[in-house]
Amino acid sequence: MDSDLYEMPGMENARVTIKDVARAAGVSIATASKALNDRGRMTVETRQRIRDVAASLGFMPNAMARALVSQRSFTIGLLTNDTYGRFTLPVAAGLSAALIDCGVSVFLCAFEDDAGQAAINLRSMLEKRVDGLVIAGKRIDRGLPIELPRLPMPVVRVNSLCSDDQIGFVPDDREGALTAVNHLIACRRRRIAHVTGPTSFLAVRLRAEGWEQAVQAAGLPLLDGPQSGDWSEAFGFRSGQQLLAMPPAERPDGVFCGNDQIARGLIDALTVGGLRVPDDVSVVGFDNWEVLAKATRPPLTTIDMGLNELGRQAGSTLLDLVAGKHVEPGVRRLACRLVVRSSCGAQPL
Amino acid sequence: MDSDLYEMPGMENARVTIKDVARAAGVSIATASKALNDRGRMTVETRQRIRDVAASLGFMPNAMARALVSQRSFTIGLLTNDTYGRFTLPVAAGLSAALIDCGVSVFLCAFEDDAGQAAINLRSMLEKRVDGLVIAGKRIDRGLPIELPRLPMPVVRVNSLCSDDQIGFVPDDREGALTAVNHLIACRRRRIAHVTGPTSFLAVRLRAEGWEQAVQAAGLPLLDGPQSGDWSEAFGFRSGQQLLAMPPAERPDGVFCGNDQIARGLIDALTVGGLRVPDDVSVVGFDNWEVLAKATRPPLTTIDMGLNELGRQAGSTLLDLVAGKHVEPGVRRLACRLVVRSSCGAQPL
Repeated sequence: MDSDLYEMPGMENARVTIKDVARAAGVSIATASKALNDRGRMTVETRQRIRDVAASLGFMPNAMARALVSQRSFTIGLLTNDTYGRFTLPVAAGLSAALIDCGVSVFLCAFEDDAGQAAINLRSMLEKRVDGLVIAGKRIDRGLPIELPRLPMPVVRVNSLCSDDQIGFVPDDREGALTAVNHLIACRRRRIAHVTGPTSFLAVRLRAEGWEQAVQAAGLPLLDGPQSGDWSEAFGFRSGQQLLAMPPAERPDGVFCGNDQIARGLIDALTVGGLRVPDDVSVVGFDNWEVLAKATRPPLTTIDMGLNELGRQAGSTLLDLVAGKHVEPGVRRLACRLVVRSSCGAQPL
Repeated sequence: MDSDLYEMPGMENARVTIKDVARAAGVSIATASKALNDRGRMTVETRQRIRDVAASLGFMPNAMARALVSQRSFTIGLLTNDTYGRFTLPVAAGLSAALIDCGVSVFLCAFEDDAGQAAINLRSMLEKRVDGLVIAGKRIDRGLPIELPRLPMPVVRVNSLCSDDQIGFVPDDREGALTAVNHLIACRRRRIAHVTGPTSFLAVRLRAEGWEQAVQAAGLPLLDGPQSGDWSEAFGFRSGQQLLAMPPAERPDGVFCGNDQIARGLIDALTVGGLRVPDDVSVVGFDNWEVLAKATRPPLTTIDMGLNELGRQAGSTLLDLVAGKHVEPGVRRLACRLVVRSSCGAQPL
């Protein structure tokens, strides 16, 4: 019976079977099966010898059958509504890195903000009996577009809404903003403005708190603001034009932007209007979206949210949960990192 | 025995079981199982009634068990070395759209250009017995970083190297370039340059052919070129500066760029240098990478490669193959589409 688990009839398949392993090891199929399934009674040496033979032949057990026996599928599901992937793919890379050495693969399903699509993909993950699920989103104050039922496997959230009894990993937005503004202060900026995204985002409110806190701690004037608009270059460009229209004495000499797109638009407007970045105005972004930040003229100093590390930690936490270890619930806020390029006048590190 | 296939012991699970279905339908578990597995003898009406009961209860068979019976896992694997996802995520969206109505989910595994990672992920897909595989790449003249063994399921390639005996879908780069240059000609441009990526890319050579063909067909002068560099804004910016340095009579009045990043850099250089886009120089890009193309000042007219449609066609072809239908091998080149914005002077459509 055990041996059947290792073979599926009717599929074109030139793989090594349990029979080949048994023959090569000089044991019965039942014994080979028991050795590989870690069941039955035999000496440690016999079990190890059969496993060595299996490994040398490149024997690969049928995963579905192995799952039926072991209750594990050696797969982690990653569900996301970030179809653009800007936030989720770095998370997925970190997750894979944490899991691949344990022989666990990450299967990603991305779907639009649509309850029907979300339900089909969730169901598919459940049907495949993934060992654990990562829910990854586009913002820390929203979950998936569906209510999750009570699930038969552990769940970890990244960059997504997470209640106190759940386990989640998010960037520390307030601390990231503090770091950004303190860098502007270290570059001798004294009038530091904040231009950012929609205040409906929790991340926007946390970053604004960090800006205010850093400015006040340094005893600098708190300028009006933050100026809030959409997450676009176009909004950044318009904000830059408003800066240009201000009397020079009132103009900020440093701007902390809520994302890299806003920073890019703002810098372009200042440059077109004849101001020099960083000499006249220093600018810091947020995201470290490299393709954009590196292409900015001058290259953009910005805050990296450590998405890869968020994924890595989510992955190792999920492995702990799958192994039955206790993990304290709650949200972990991971430190952000300043990436110094040329838009603030500091020497790139 | 059949009923066992629908349950896995030992998992925390509040799901509807085959027993619930049998009870609600007033039949034995064996009959319910036969009805749902499409086996055994019973009237069409009885079979349908049991299925309706199962559907109304939200009964979900254990997918791994169903796969062991039906030899299908209702999953398509998408393997890609495009960890940035710029090309692959739109393909994945099209693929999902083609499959989701058939109850087939797409599981994506992305890995770096590393043979070891590729092998682990491929193995994982094989172990899960996906019904078919899509290999998606970053360029049409490279495959995955490993040799694929003979696989027990159909394979379709998208945006990836594809031999004559394989099945692949790629954008029609030459035709896309023709469309771009013909648009510049329709906008009364007479001196049309081509600034593009590295000539080691087949796509670069095909697009250059399209540029040359369109220019010559219109009886216009074939300017020196194409100018080839890397796929970056920085290269586009330098090319724009070279244009500015030319005597006005020799300067191109239209530029077809090999991607949107080059176009963006080139436009920025021209603008900073005092030339007007599109009045003095019209520019067309390639990719329709919207976040960049829309943010360009002026918004960029460009060629859309139809990545979503490539994914959709790959998905429906894969379904045909899984169903055992014959599909002619070879590469399909799908038409590209002009997206008119403001960088050429034509009215946006």
